[in-house]
Amino acid sequence: MPLHQFHFNASISSSSSPFLAPPSAFNSFSSRHQNFSLPPRDLGICRCVATPQEAKTPTAYKTNVSRNANMGKLQAGYLFPEVARRRNAHKEKYPDAQVISLGIGDTTEPIPDVITSSMSKKCQALSTLEGYSGYGAEQGEKSLRAAIRSTFYADLGIDDDDIFVSDGAKCDISRLQAYVDSSVIMGQTGQFQTDVEKYANIEYMNCTPENGFFPDLSKSPRTDIIFFCSPNNPTGAAATREQLTRLVQFAKDNGSIIVYDSAYALYMSDDNPRSIFEIPGAREVAIETSSFSKYAGFTGVRLGWTVVPKELLFSDGFPVARDFNRVVCTCFNGASTVAQAGGLACLSPEGLKAMHEVIGFYKGNTEIIMDTFNSLGFKVYGGRNAPYVWVHFPGRSSWDVFAEILEKTHVVTTPGSGFGPGGEGFVRVSAFGHRGNVLEACKRFRQLYK
Amino acid sequence: MPLHQFHFNASISSSSSPFLAPPSAFNSFSSRHQNFSLPPRDLGICRCVATPQEAKTPTAYKTNVSRNANMGKLQAGYLFPEVARRRNAHKEKYPDAQVISLGIGDTTEPIPDVITSSMSKKCQALSTLEGYSGYGAEQGEKSLRAAIRSTFYADLGIDDDDIFVSDGAKCDISRLQAYVDSSVIMGQTGQFQTDVEKYANIEYMNCTPENGFFPDLSKSPRTDIIFFCSPNNPTGAAATREQLTRLVQFAKDNGSIIVYDSAYALYMSDDNPRSIFEIPGAREVAIETSSFSKYAGFTGVRLGWTVVPKELLFSDGFPVARDFNRVVCTCFNGASTVAQAGGLACLSPEGLKAMHEVIGFYKGNTEIIMDTFNSLGFKVYGGRNAPYVWVHFPGRSSWDVFAEILEKTHVVTTPGSGFGPGGEGFVRVSAFGHRGNVLEACKRFRQLYK
Repeated sequence: MPLHQFHFNASISSSSSPFLAPPSAFNSFSSRHQNFSLPPRDLGICRCVATPQEAKTPTAYKTNVSRNANMGKLQAGYLFPEVARRRNAHKEKYPDAQVISLGIGDTTEPIPDVITSSMSKKCQALSTLEGYSGYGAEQGEKSLRAAIRSTFYADLGIDDDDIFVSDGAKCDISRLQAYVDSSVIMGQTGQFQTDVEKYANIEYMNCTPENGFFPDLSKSPRTDIIFFCSPNNPTGAAATREQLTRLVQFAKDNGSIIVYDSAYALYMSDDNPRSIFEIPGAREVAIETSSFSKYAGFTGVRLGWTVVPKELLFSDGFPVARDFNRVVCTCFNGASTVAQAGGLACLSPEGLKAMHEVIGFYKGNTEIIMDTFNSLGFKVYGGRNAPYVWVHFPGRSSWDVFAEILEKTHVVTTPGSGFGPGGEGFVRVSAFGHRGNVLEACKRFRQLYK
Repeated sequence: MPLHQFHFNASISSSSSPFLAPPSAFNSFSSRHQNFSLPPRDLGICRCVATPQEAKTPTAYKTNVSRNANMGKLQAGYLFPEVARRRNAHKEKYPDAQVISLGIGDTTEPIPDVITSSMSKKCQALSTLEGYSGYGAEQGEKSLRAAIRSTFYADLGIDDDDIFVSDGAKCDISRLQAYVDSSVIMGQTGQFQTDVEKYANIEYMNCTPENGFFPDLSKSPRTDIIFFCSPNNPTGAAATREQLTRLVQFAKDNGSIIVYDSAYALYMSDDNPRSIFEIPGAREVAIETSSFSKYAGFTGVRLGWTVVPKELLFSDGFPVARDFNRVVCTCFNGASTVAQAGGLACLSPEGLKAMHEVIGFYKGNTEIIMDTFNSLGFKVYGGRNAPYVWVHFPGRSSWDVFAEILEKTHVVTTPGSGFGPGGEGFVRVSAFGHRGNVLEACKRFRQLYK
């Protein structure tokens, strides 16, 4: 499941990640409560979680190996399994209904031929003596690293070897251990607090229409890691240059590291920064991770990258990139050569043109969805800069609205509260879908809310 | 770089892996010294390690984030960088020499067309509306999991959903955190002890000709994890059914978990178990990891798998597979759909035939190398069950022999002592190479040692 179902933004106190000091190295964790919380991270990720009952097996023998107690802190999947459960129940109730899913954020359109042709050629080459290649560099092929730099980071002071090619942003984030579930697994968070629906030791940054979907940094305590996703999923909000300049300054004042998820950058219509590294000084405080998934439909092909500038240093002056490189070399063996051939094709002039056409198609879907809800008098957010429309139903329960839409229109959306209490009263409508389905869904929305 | 450059066998006391309890949960670690040690794990893995000097940059600003002190325990890469340094120096000295590399264990032969054709078709399908697919299951496609089970684990009591498809055994092992460098990074080992060339809190299991390359379990202390690689790299030794039966019993008596690396199983000539699960009771104490890399030349395509039986339980009765599944779902997004299409083709009747032909070719190389050294009066080990020949030069320094062979024959091998002190007096000759190069190298060996 996609990384950018890492919703809203969060900052993490300390870490026991492969490259950050373990919690034990810290005297104390702040665990102040914010008025807004992240969902248990696995919601969109792990669709097959054990319940204690399931876990029991008839086997008598047990090893003497203790389970990692941190695993027990993980909350069972809820949002997407629950959405799926309700969709299935609905299909049983209305076996003949044409159910349309605008819920989960998975790509639906074919990969442009110019890209798949290159991948296909690479596969064929692997069966020839001249074209065969074995192990590649863990950091990715030089040509691809160079193409990513020149395409996305030209004139931003980023070098080719600052780019680490990965099998997807989610995997890199987990290697970074900035990922909430990973953080829980590594024991850097406290228990999940059901009352506030958040893990202890993680500061949740409130992003709502009231604050323009940008946190009040004056109220944010210092943390080691600040995870920031822009354009954001699910709100679709993109931070402005002025906001990101404040974020970088905040990180610098606190000596924090920003992990910036820019996986939707090419979806931006506004003149917002496409990369955190457009902000002066960001190379000293930020890591950026991105992916080909939503640009070229590579959700299944698996290809992404992470930028770790040489200027980013630990408190002892050791470059973060050196340790990240070591972690990548130790825990990863490079992205598939076929996927990398596809990535290289994505960044060719024809590939870029084709990628932008796919993105343009999804943005077209987004406009149709936004126009529909706007014309019905709803307040909608996002959309302009991300393939998600965040529709406001003031005073109503997200799950009630979700159920109403499903019951009356046979369209599956995602209840905002599933992303956390701050999402209450909102529903996320995904723009990933075939045009016909999106048009049909909007026609039904108009009938329901006319 | 390949997982099975995880040399010899090691057992690890406790763990702070994603699914094992952190060291803090243990009162004490055993750190008894064995007379044999593993190399610093990154040797074959990380070819770009920072030296403190390199690490320094002119940047003034530092974050307040502490570096993970465990990273500092990692030893700089030595063996393969050093082998490469000497090879390059040799090339400068003899610019016209035809240098042959039988050092590093990377595949050299093309991937059979029946396999690449399926991958190519999958790529083309991704550019069609019908053939496009997005996110797949983190655990891998049902059809591939079923094919792996029926091909490698028929009648062994393994279910399809015990199989977790990965982007390579190395990556899965790192997720398992049984991998030595990962273990160090997660803080489960002590400092590297230069005197004995080993990390504290890791028990090194002595595998030499004297004990038939199988450890004396009566001298082995109890550990949580026992990492066992058979057929072994670099010795090429494959454990017998009787030895593995003792290993399983040893694990059962101690309540340990065996992580069994069987990545060379199809190279076996002897009638040894291809899987640890051929041993009764193994499903209650073992995890098995394997890969398509050395079977189908997938070192760059990236595809492997790990088997975690439901019967394997933590001390509290919780199934290890449930937590491993959660880790995979959290830290991984599934292997590339293209690689999985290739894996499925590998396991078709034609694919299996083609894979065995490639393996047969490398086994042919191995025989040529073994015959050469045998006829020259050397004692050679391995070979019969793995693509590595372990040649004994009693009383001589591995590095001296390596240098002699390189100087006199322009052939690059790997000095045994680079894998650890127990390898002193041995040289590893890899069978991964084009036939012409192997024949030429052997011709030169005959001239040198006639």
